[in-house]
Amino acid sequence: MAKNTDLIIFGAAGDLANRKLFPALYRLHCAELLEDNVRIMGLARADMSNAEFIQATLESLQKMLGQDEIKDSQWQSFTRRLHYMQLDFVNKRHYANFKSWLVEKRVAIYYLATPPSLFGPISSHLNSAGCVDRLSRIVLEKPIGQDLASSRHVNDTVGQYFDERNIYRIDHYLGKETVQNLLALRFANRVIHSQWDNSCIDHVQITAAETVGIEGRWGYYDNVGQLRDMVQNHLLQLLCMVAMEPPNSLEADEIRAEKVKLMRALRPITGDSVSDDAVRGQYSAGWINGEPVVGYMEEEGSREGSSNTETFVALKAYVDNWRWTGVPFYLRTGKRMGEKLTQVVITYKDSPHSIFESGHTSGNRLVIRLQPNEGIQLEMVSKKQSLKERLSLEKRVLNLDFFETSKKDRIADAYERLLLEVISGNQWLFVSRDEIEASWHWCDSLLAAWYDKNINPKSYGAGSWGPSKAEILIERDDRSWYGSE
Amino acid sequence: MAKNTDLIIFGAAGDLANRKLFPALYRLHCAELLEDNVRIMGLARADMSNAEFIQATLESLQKMLGQDEIKDSQWQSFTRRLHYMQLDFVNKRHYANFKSWLVEKRVAIYYLATPPSLFGPISSHLNSAGCVDRLSRIVLEKPIGQDLASSRHVNDTVGQYFDERNIYRIDHYLGKETVQNLLALRFANRVIHSQWDNSCIDHVQITAAETVGIEGRWGYYDNVGQLRDMVQNHLLQLLCMVAMEPPNSLEADEIRAEKVKLMRALRPITGDSVSDDAVRGQYSAGWINGEPVVGYMEEEGSREGSSNTETFVALKAYVDNWRWTGVPFYLRTGKRMGEKLTQVVITYKDSPHSIFESGHTSGNRLVIRLQPNEGIQLEMVSKKQSLKERLSLEKRVLNLDFFETSKKDRIADAYERLLLEVISGNQWLFVSRDEIEASWHWCDSLLAAWYDKNINPKSYGAGSWGPSKAEILIERDDRSWYGSE
Repeated sequence: MAKNTDLIIFGAAGDLANRKLFPALYRLHCAELLEDNVRIMGLARADMSNAEFIQATLESLQKMLGQDEIKDSQWQSFTRRLHYMQLDFVNKRHYANFKSWLVEKRVAIYYLATPPSLFGPISSHLNSAGCVDRLSRIVLEKPIGQDLASSRHVNDTVGQYFDERNIYRIDHYLGKETVQNLLALRFANRVIHSQWDNSCIDHVQITAAETVGIEGRWGYYDNVGQLRDMVQNHLLQLLCMVAMEPPNSLEADEIRAEKVKLMRALRPITGDSVSDDAVRGQYSAGWINGEPVVGYMEEEGSREGSSNTETFVALKAYVDNWRWTGVPFYLRTGKRMGEKLTQVVITYKDSPHSIFESGHTSGNRLVIRLQPNEGIQLEMVSKKQSLKERLSLEKRVLNLDFFETSKKDRIADAYERLLLEVISGNQWLFVSRDEIEASWHWCDSLLAAWYDKNINPKSYGAGSWGPSKAEILIERDDRSWYGSE
Repeated sequence: MAKNTDLIIFGAAGDLANRKLFPALYRLHCAELLEDNVRIMGLARADMSNAEFIQATLESLQKMLGQDEIKDSQWQSFTRRLHYMQLDFVNKRHYANFKSWLVEKRVAIYYLATPPSLFGPISSHLNSAGCVDRLSRIVLEKPIGQDLASSRHVNDTVGQYFDERNIYRIDHYLGKETVQNLLALRFANRVIHSQWDNSCIDHVQITAAETVGIEGRWGYYDNVGQLRDMVQNHLLQLLCMVAMEPPNSLEADEIRAEKVKLMRALRPITGDSVSDDAVRGQYSAGWINGEPVVGYMEEEGSREGSSNTETFVALKAYVDNWRWTGVPFYLRTGKRMGEKLTQVVITYKDSPHSIFESGHTSGNRLVIRLQPNEGIQLEMVSKKQSLKERLSLEKRVLNLDFFETSKKDRIADAYERLLLEVISGNQWLFVSRDEIEASWHWCDSLLAAWYDKNINPKSYGAGSWGPSKAEILIERDDRSWYGSE
């Protein structure tokens, strides 16, 4: 635990702060994982007193965590950490007042729960006001840019004031227990790591399906699309955790170097391969959980006419290195899918020869599920217990997840882990500049290919699993998407 | 299911018939796995009527299976299969009477639930009386001989009258569901079979520990000892199922050829290695489950003086082939051990490098348990769910056994499977002559080394895990016996 640390949240009245940051901080407090003298400063544009801010935070926590989790004594001790200050983030002069709250020799952590357009101004103003020293840390939420050039600009700007070792770029997928468990599984189990390669693994699937649509941010989303919104960050991060070489240690530099190496080995999807290896989709009206929903172009805030923005992407990617040559990585992500499902599926090759008379002979799978229920399952084949048949097989699903043994414990939210790591100053679960730039580099190539070839999104009905081309993408290879039908 | 088959049990009033054969046959009958016209003939020396035999069988079944399992209608239909005839096995003239019961073109299966000394006389008399044709099968229980020479003699004698393809040598370990499941696991799971070798597996342990002593057969046992009684058959069969090369198919010839190959690759324990690689023990008085028990030399029926017979063996064996070079196989078996435990433990190598801060990092294990609870477990390492520690590990035990999913079903007894296979004429779970002879060849070398070096059994207290030398045997290699302390 780090002492003498202050956490300063820009955007303390916003959605992220209320839904994720305060609940996580409160739970860390209750679990006694925050040193007593860690102060929490909320900054926002609203004119509120400390007391009003504390009351608003209480109400928000009650809503998010339920009344039962808010014990009076714990809440009272938590409030002693809470401070509030009105701040117009773009008004340089306001920062002097904030500066007076800082205490020398304490580590200031600036958490920017703000639109990315403010990353530059806030860091500049903090610096001008003398709020940044060599210990100060800054936490950035996605997106970092919209392409390689703009991400470089953001990184350059913030980098003027903060060292790379003090910049914490959040990808909350990395905070999930299950994603960290994947590291344990991969690197602490001989039975897994010694055959984690193209000799034994047939292919990998990564799915991030959402049932939600655009949720009132059409104007923003239409300039972004699903590739930038989900693939560039979350899906490529998952891909890295699955496919990177074993790092020398769990030090941030070691892990992040392996992830960069992996992303640089991703074969670019270019004009030659784009029509075979990439599918764009855009949802039309349909049904989700029995309720009718409108299409993308009828969403609140949408423009008249048409849009070329994709709300669905399916890709077939290759990693050109020694470990993965010949193993396809199928990625898909979309909005308004039939169900909420985020998972990585590693399918092992079938046995080269079968000696069994009947039953389930198609091999092993490792399923790493992030949503709806976090967990890891290993599919194996064993003898069907039957005297009628001599030796026929059946599939067995082995739970490697946390639920089974620890029903009493909830699984920690990603933000609890991530805040803890920021406070203790460990970047291992955060994304480096090199990673960001390597992933944009790869995505830019695909975006350019779509643009050059004039490829527009195919329509798919809300509640489906994307355009039929997404099925063809994988079925052409005699494989099929796992967990959707 | 085979039609037109008769099962003739020599020794129908004996222990094996009552404890194993009739319960298995009755259960096969109830599960409708016996064709209607399969007849069962009991042969024994006792003068009994059919009705008396049926009544005795009923009482024995009630005792073995419990009253609940004996449903009246099923029992009535089962009795229609049952026949009894008095027969003095060594009296050649008695067989003519039995011959009259046989029906031409039906397959006669002779199950010799008798002392091995009768295998020769019975097969000879059956032949003389014209009871053997090219379809007749004979089922033999262990032991087949006491060394290579005597086993050859038994096999030669029986082989005069029965083709090898009609001789079914029982090793009931092969009838166990879990042993067959090992085949499914090994050969239907890429994650297992592609690293089933010296690159990934550190060592293998096979334990067969009994709590019982000599059980009134001291005179017999003292001429035999634990190596012949348990290692030559059961432990080497388990070793084969674990270590044999993948067979081309599950045909009996293919599997048995692989087992023979494996046994021939077993490095002989000779005078040079015997004191390092083999431990003999003999139990003295001690405690089992809180009850005092006498030592081997005080058992009922024991001779005055002393005996050099071992009741415990621990061995370190090597398989000199491409797959297993460098992987030790530790075997141990004994009477009057602390608990009843039969298991095979495959320990994978540790990861070559550890990147984790703490917790359980020593690798994967596959535990195949035959007793007390049949089942298979895979030990893996996963992340401890904890925010306090960054990424520490804990052991997880995954059940691959039948119990979990099929609590409602009991696991079939080995004899049910074996009788079914005899009746359907499939030898895949039976031991070939070549196997018997290869295993005796190996055991004879060890017995000779003990004799030549004048190595006598070390004493161990009943209720312990054998002489301390057995611990040293494995601990010298920085390993330890699994599941005993």
